[in-house]
Amino acid sequence: MLYIIGLGLADERDISVKGLEIVRKADRVYLEAYTAILLVEKEQLEAYYGRQVILADRELVESQSDEILRDADTKDVAFLVVGDPFSATTHTDLALRCRQHEPPVPTRTLPNASILTAVGATGLSLYTFGQTVSMVFFTDSWKPSSFYDRIAENARLGFHTLVLLDIKVKEPDLQALARGKIVYEPPRFMTVAQCASQMLEIEEDRQQGVCGKEALAVGVARLGSADQEIVAGTLEDLAAADLGRPLHSLVLCGKKMHEMEWEFVRGFAKDLTKFDAIWKRDYGDKN
Amino acid sequence: MLYIIGLGLADERDISVKGLEIVRKADRVYLEAYTAILLVEKEQLEAYYGRQVILADRELVESQSDEILRDADTKDVAFLVVGDPFSATTHTDLALRCRQHEPPVPTRTLPNASILTAVGATGLSLYTFGQTVSMVFFTDSWKPSSFYDRIAENARLGFHTLVLLDIKVKEPDLQALARGKIVYEPPRFMTVAQCASQMLEIEEDRQQGVCGKEALAVGVARLGSADQEIVAGTLEDLAAADLGRPLHSLVLCGKKMHEMEWEFVRGFAKDLTKFDAIWKRDYGDKN
Repeated sequence: MLYIIGLGLADERDISVKGLEIVRKADRVYLEAYTAILLVEKEQLEAYYGRQVILADRELVESQSDEILRDADTKDVAFLVVGDPFSATTHTDLALRCRQHEPPVPTRTLPNASILTAVGATGLSLYTFGQTVSMVFFTDSWKPSSFYDRIAENARLGFHTLVLLDIKVKEPDLQALARGKIVYEPPRFMTVAQCASQMLEIEEDRQQGVCGKEALAVGVARLGSADQEIVAGTLEDLAAADLGRPLHSLVLCGKKMHEMEWEFVRGFAKDLTKFDAIWKRDYGDKN
Repeated sequence: MLYIIGLGLADERDISVKGLEIVRKADRVYLEAYTAILLVEKEQLEAYYGRQVILADRELVESQSDEILRDADTKDVAFLVVGDPFSATTHTDLALRCRQHEPPVPTRTLPNASILTAVGATGLSLYTFGQTVSMVFFTDSWKPSSFYDRIAENARLGFHTLVLLDIKVKEPDLQALARGKIVYEPPRFMTVAQCASQMLEIEEDRQQGVCGKEALAVGVARLGSADQEIVAGTLEDLAAADLGRPLHSLVLCGKKMHEMEWEFVRGFAKDLTKFDAIWKRDYGDKN
């Protein structure tokens, strides 16, 4: 059996009791470590679980999954995933390969907390989020802006948009690669401030009023941990905010934002007077 | 401190290790028991947690929350919630009352699995869901159809829609109430089949092609438990499907449904030939 086990968001004790029991008994334990990260190191998981944990990078999961699935028709393999097992398409793909494997590998998934629902901690209603978008690191020559169209689709219906921020883990250094050496760049995690700046930059180009300086948004950091941080403000405010250590995410508020949501979110406002004035002018359930 | 602790979806061992430690030490432990239910009884939780668990019904949570918050500025109170703490606005409201309490009650939430992400088990991408809708039990004289407008908004953008199904727990019997007696009706849980029928009934009225007989959908039951069940088919198929014990939910597929999603979902099809033919005719990423 392949158990795809969600670890939740913060540390080694966010796994479910059921998940922990499986990890402790499994023949092999993998940790998927490139679509998301926990706030603690692998060694801390190993010490707590009492098990050796094999780091599964993109290469192993996407090109050598037969190694992960080896003997899994008769043995128990645990594949640990930060957040919820289905928070990344990678894991759906792995489950699909289990079905197609010869012999087929039975799978079981253990759901857990995901950033997709943990953002409820902002006070914004999970029921009025539209599609989720991803924001990648811009470079001088590459500023993909398809996120803007997706946010615009959500915005037209008054929906909130969760923006997931790029992380770069174990990326090869291209200059070293050109010299025939494999050297990995240090990991990078996009901040709320960078994300807000990139959104403002594209708004500057597109000018459709989707994510301008006075759009209300909420930045979150380390959700689910004891030192989680939530800051609400305009995108301009957030472009100057420092939310500390990763992981960060951002929610762009939809115009439907209801009075009850506002009442909760304003508790996180950097500048309450400004926040309230903009909410009253542009937001609220007009039905 | 008020700890709002997500229990996950199935049984007493879906709580996180961290959550369990808090429950075992807390001064009082409440279980919110009217917006959702676990698949096991309160007694099973009490035996496993080694704690007395106080059932918190709507009356207690919404009108007598001072009792829940009593002494919580100095003592630890655990408030257990099925799924994720912010899966229902009730819990945001409770967190808000903690802030406004005199003296203020500090809160901490422990996220957990929610139906909102556990539906990823269907293979449908969580990133292309639109707003979530709720379906209530129709009566002869009351068939609220605002869900139809919301699904239509999602459908226009090709999004999937998660439909959460009504549960009735501890509802007073109105006839008995008229005679001055408080008698509670037996609990009722909407099935996938009932939901699909109600959607077809409203489509019949509205005729906008939002949820007709050949719309593809996925019914799920007891997600996250060992006997979870997933059935894919047309709404007409699902109106005749029996997915067994509660809780059930339904996902109406959006027209954007990508080839990779299709490949996974078709594994749950009741009638594969029909499912594939309709997908090829009406769905798929046309970009």
